[in-house]
Amino acid sequence: MAELIGACMFGQSGGPTAVINASAAGVFEEAMKHRCITQIYGLAYGIEGVLKEELYDIRKENPSMIELLKTTPSSALGSVRYKLKDAREDETDYKRILEVFQKYHVRYFFYNGGNDSMDTCNKISRYLEQVHYDCRVIGIPKTIDNDICGTDHCPGFGSAAKYIATSAMELYQDTKVYNKGRITIIELMGRNAGWLTASTALASDRGSGPELIYLPEVEFDINKFIKDVCSLYEKNRNVIVAVSEGIKNKKGRYIAEYDSHLKKNKDSFGHAKLGGVAYVLVKALEQETDAQVRGVEFGLLQRCAAHCASKTDVEEAYLAGQIAVRIAVDGKSGCMIAFERENGVEYKCNIKLVDLKVVANEERKVPREWINKEGNGINKKFIEYAMPLIQGESYPPAENGLPKFSKLKRGSFI
Amino acid sequence: MAELIGACMFGQSGGPTAVINASAAGVFEEAMKHRCITQIYGLAYGIEGVLKEELYDIRKENPSMIELLKTTPSSALGSVRYKLKDAREDETDYKRILEVFQKYHVRYFFYNGGNDSMDTCNKISRYLEQVHYDCRVIGIPKTIDNDICGTDHCPGFGSAAKYIATSAMELYQDTKVYNKGRITIIELMGRNAGWLTASTALASDRGSGPELIYLPEVEFDINKFIKDVCSLYEKNRNVIVAVSEGIKNKKGRYIAEYDSHLKKNKDSFGHAKLGGVAYVLVKALEQETDAQVRGVEFGLLQRCAAHCASKTDVEEAYLAGQIAVRIAVDGKSGCMIAFERENGVEYKCNIKLVDLKVVANEERKVPREWINKEGNGINKKFIEYAMPLIQGESYPPAENGLPKFSKLKRGSFI
Repeated sequence: MAELIGACMFGQSGGPTAVINASAAGVFEEAMKHRCITQIYGLAYGIEGVLKEELYDIRKENPSMIELLKTTPSSALGSVRYKLKDAREDETDYKRILEVFQKYHVRYFFYNGGNDSMDTCNKISRYLEQVHYDCRVIGIPKTIDNDICGTDHCPGFGSAAKYIATSAMELYQDTKVYNKGRITIIELMGRNAGWLTASTALASDRGSGPELIYLPEVEFDINKFIKDVCSLYEKNRNVIVAVSEGIKNKKGRYIAEYDSHLKKNKDSFGHAKLGGVAYVLVKALEQETDAQVRGVEFGLLQRCAAHCASKTDVEEAYLAGQIAVRIAVDGKSGCMIAFERENGVEYKCNIKLVDLKVVANEERKVPREWINKEGNGINKKFIEYAMPLIQGESYPPAENGLPKFSKLKRGSFI
Repeated sequence: MAELIGACMFGQSGGPTAVINASAAGVFEEAMKHRCITQIYGLAYGIEGVLKEELYDIRKENPSMIELLKTTPSSALGSVRYKLKDAREDETDYKRILEVFQKYHVRYFFYNGGNDSMDTCNKISRYLEQVHYDCRVIGIPKTIDNDICGTDHCPGFGSAAKYIATSAMELYQDTKVYNKGRITIIELMGRNAGWLTASTALASDRGSGPELIYLPEVEFDINKFIKDVCSLYEKNRNVIVAVSEGIKNKKGRYIAEYDSHLKKNKDSFGHAKLGGVAYVLVKALEQETDAQVRGVEFGLLQRCAAHCASKTDVEEAYLAGQIAVRIAVDGKSGCMIAFERENGVEYKCNIKLVDLKVVANEERKVPREWINKEGNGINKKFIEYAMPLIQGESYPPAENGLPKFSKLKRGSFI
């Protein structure tokens, strides 16, 4: 493969994670090592940065701030949720992208995001191929949701799982403290895939987590739920339940939507915005028991808690960025970095490449056989899967008692 | 002072904190060193453990589990909210307490809790004195709320403040990620005192925290609030606001009570149960702006996040327990352990004793001069006060990727 000389572009897209910036650090630090990469552009707000021609010159950033990205949560360049139309229907955005790529001699394009972002990445890759513009396009997976296909797991998930399991253990300590009837409903993120909610089982596995766990993978029957909770409450007088924001009834309707106060607007990908399922379930249970029922939303913190990140996750996220640059320089394009677990007792994951066409817009769910028959608990298969991903502690450097986060200059557009 | 020989009793009361068990470890480890202390009883669920005669023999516990209490959140013995009646009105509980103390030869009584618990402690102390039962009664302060009088600060607050400031910094990273209008309302605990809400200013002081902060110490005017937020939103298109659950309007009515869905029951101390103020304010702002408005409750996690505890706080909580035992053995009674800050640039706190009568049922609030004139921000005086309290990281020992917490046997009542 002939050496391809030109600039590289990197963008972050979709919801933040605790480690998306670790992948950025991997891309930036690796790109600086390759002479064929003439410039390193960071995109302001993902693909919007191309369309608006808002680019940061990463070589102008302080190397210590690039280093600090490894332990800085969220997206340091800014993120976006922007769905590219099909090029056959509307070519406007694509023409603009090509124009900007040509202007800046972009020959390497790295896009870090979840399912929707891999769709963006795939569309750009196909378009550039079609117009014979030579550019290597590589997707780098990230999502706390862990729902990208073609990979054993996604960077971002391990840290979210570690934070969720740790917080669930602490909450267990807290809610079991009084000698009186109490039911606690923990609400976790996850629209269609229950990976995050299942992570509370890591706490239960240590004897201090929820006794009942409901994922969106299983049809939710509110009457069975009330029965499950109440019969356990009769026995123990204290029950902790974990539910995914995305649980749905047999008609496919979100339980969260029963909350009439919820604004039913959709995000720019057309997904319904959820939240509030704990509130709905608290109300339902209050009518059935004498228990004090309390809802706890782990909320946005589950996707940005770098202070409780998994070292394994941080390292893999960095590696994903690093390898993306290497394989692009080696001539690969149109694919996403993925992880493949080796068989054996000890955890070892290798990097593999998957075609972006295969990945885009598919959602990977928790296998039904990892959930108990009753549909209200998680079994050992999930624990074995998830445990290696939360190993090791990654603490941001402390500065006067609080974490020190990276602050890129960003100010000066090219 | 003649040596007083007999058993000691220790109880935990009120809401949990990340470090209340560190004080327990201090009491237990110190008590074991004194020959005059013949038995060490842990109370099941605070004062309820006396009334029900449910005691744990702490000497039967594994010393490594006592050690592990230093980094285990919540109340390992169980907690309670139980208000003792005035002995002049109803002597029943007091007679029972005396009976149990006599039965177990209790000569040292240590009670770890907040304002209400210091009231309990004070009542017991006065009663025992009145009936000429020789017992040394010492209060050990704890509360995330930091509202106990007579002390510079309370064990539990520093860790809660550190968790809150850290999480606020992470949330800042998260909410500033999209290039579109967004308002985020963070709701913090604190019924009448705004110490926890003010702690978000530690994040703002690092350039990544809320721009507006509202404490219950200042009368809340919702119209002024909307004006504050909207004018900042016009300028920045992204605003983070921190509010205390306990903010009240000029009539003294809780803003949270405007949420008609909130159950207006009271806890057993007669305090209204709050929560939901973020929800009320989100609804109010949605009508006024085109911004995406989101509420985030830090919830129960702010009082049990041992994984993000302050080392200073853990050490002081332990010291408070340790000194309580020492001064009781030395003959002191009817007082609470308190902290007194030395003047000077470097932080140094000494232990002092305050009379329980002075402490009981008073609430210490954030001084008005630490809040800005507008009543929507916190000034440097608070930062200087709180900064030393969050110093140092105290991580629970990790076991296979998750914190390892103490588990006392507790099972066998005496």
